[in-house]
Amino acid sequence: MARADGWQCHALTVDYGQRHSAELEAAARVARSLGAVEHRLARVDLGVFGGSALTDPGIPVPRKPTEGIPITYVPARNTVFLALALAHAEVTQSDAVFTGVNAVDYSGYPDCRPEFMEAFERLANLATKRAVEGSPIRIHAPIVRLSKAEIVRKGLALGVDFALTVSCYNADAQGRACNACDACRFRRAGFQEAGIPDPTRYAASPVR
Amino acid sequence: MARADGWQCHALTVDYGQRHSAELEAAARVARSLGAVEHRLARVDLGVFGGSALTDPGIPVPRKPTEGIPITYVPARNTVFLALALAHAEVTQSDAVFTGVNAVDYSGYPDCRPEFMEAFERLANLATKRAVEGSPIRIHAPIVRLSKAEIVRKGLALGVDFALTVSCYNADAQGRACNACDACRFRRAGFQEAGIPDPTRYAASPVR
Repeated sequence: MARADGWQCHALTVDYGQRHSAELEAAARVARSLGAVEHRLARVDLGVFGGSALTDPGIPVPRKPTEGIPITYVPARNTVFLALALAHAEVTQSDAVFTGVNAVDYSGYPDCRPEFMEAFERLANLATKRAVEGSPIRIHAPIVRLSKAEIVRKGLALGVDFALTVSCYNADAQGRACNACDACRFRRAGFQEAGIPDPTRYAASPVR
Repeated sequence: MARADGWQCHALTVDYGQRHSAELEAAARVARSLGAVEHRLARVDLGVFGGSALTDPGIPVPRKPTEGIPITYVPARNTVFLALALAHAEVTQSDAVFTGVNAVDYSGYPDCRPEFMEAFERLANLATKRAVEGSPIRIHAPIVRLSKAEIVRKGLALGVDFALTVSCYNADAQGRACNACDACRFRRAGFQEAGIPDPTRYAASPVR
């Protein structure tokens, strides 16, 4: 969506100690396929804090929906991600940060909501040399209010090859999705609702 | 100051790719001497972004004051630090984050100012599971409005051994301060103005 709006994109991926590297490899493929002018990998070890199934190998990823905010919530993760993106934006003299968070078909993570993004934009413009010198940085979350089905349709209209992407929390060494975690459920339902064949490589039949 | 107010302190140090490890060793000494209940080291590589004399070994630390926000500014550094502290606070069930930023005798870094801290607190309470479930996290910057002389006096009154601490941007392998960078200038002037002997181990005479 940023490219279609004419932005030159400096892609950023964060290796934060997640359970698998499949999404890091997928990010590199996607950045290449979308014509990013560069792709950087930032490393931060959130495993030192633990407290989440995504950063503590001792906590299993749930294979069924759970009550409330699930154990896959990573404390302050999107705050850390956006802080790194802000650093990246400042050094590349970028005018905006785009993030793919979504608060419609989602797990209730607080740091995916529009009000969080608005508060981060306000912070960004008090935090940076660039902003205090008169060039603010906007935070865009263009899919935050779309359903997963709308995201699928929008992506296809823009020529996204969803076979390149990984959403699963628990992908295997070959990058195949578990078909059981919340991320797999929401993604699969999005393709179904959109009436579009799901190109995801699954390691197993769906767990319902 | 947090300890004197009765807080149990979970200390956090960030290895972000700074020029020297002297401040990491000093942080461990200080955390021990102040009776922190734990001390964690979080690693994040801000060197991948560069753009600062503190993270790019190819950019020298200025040995004289410069105009405007100096090249020792690290893009979005305190946003990254506070984001990590927020993760740490959430997993340790802490009610507050304390940070030692100062906006009086300082280099004009935008992310040291009270308005930045207030915006971060607002963000923190939209960002975390803990906050949306009813337990907000406060951000305290107890020395943000003190002069360096006031900080020195306050520290001594509380029994701080300043010989354990490192402020220098460019400390040598023995942890000795360069006596030329802005951080050394502000610190030295603080002891002078307070009329208190400066226990800092310097590698050289002051550059004026």
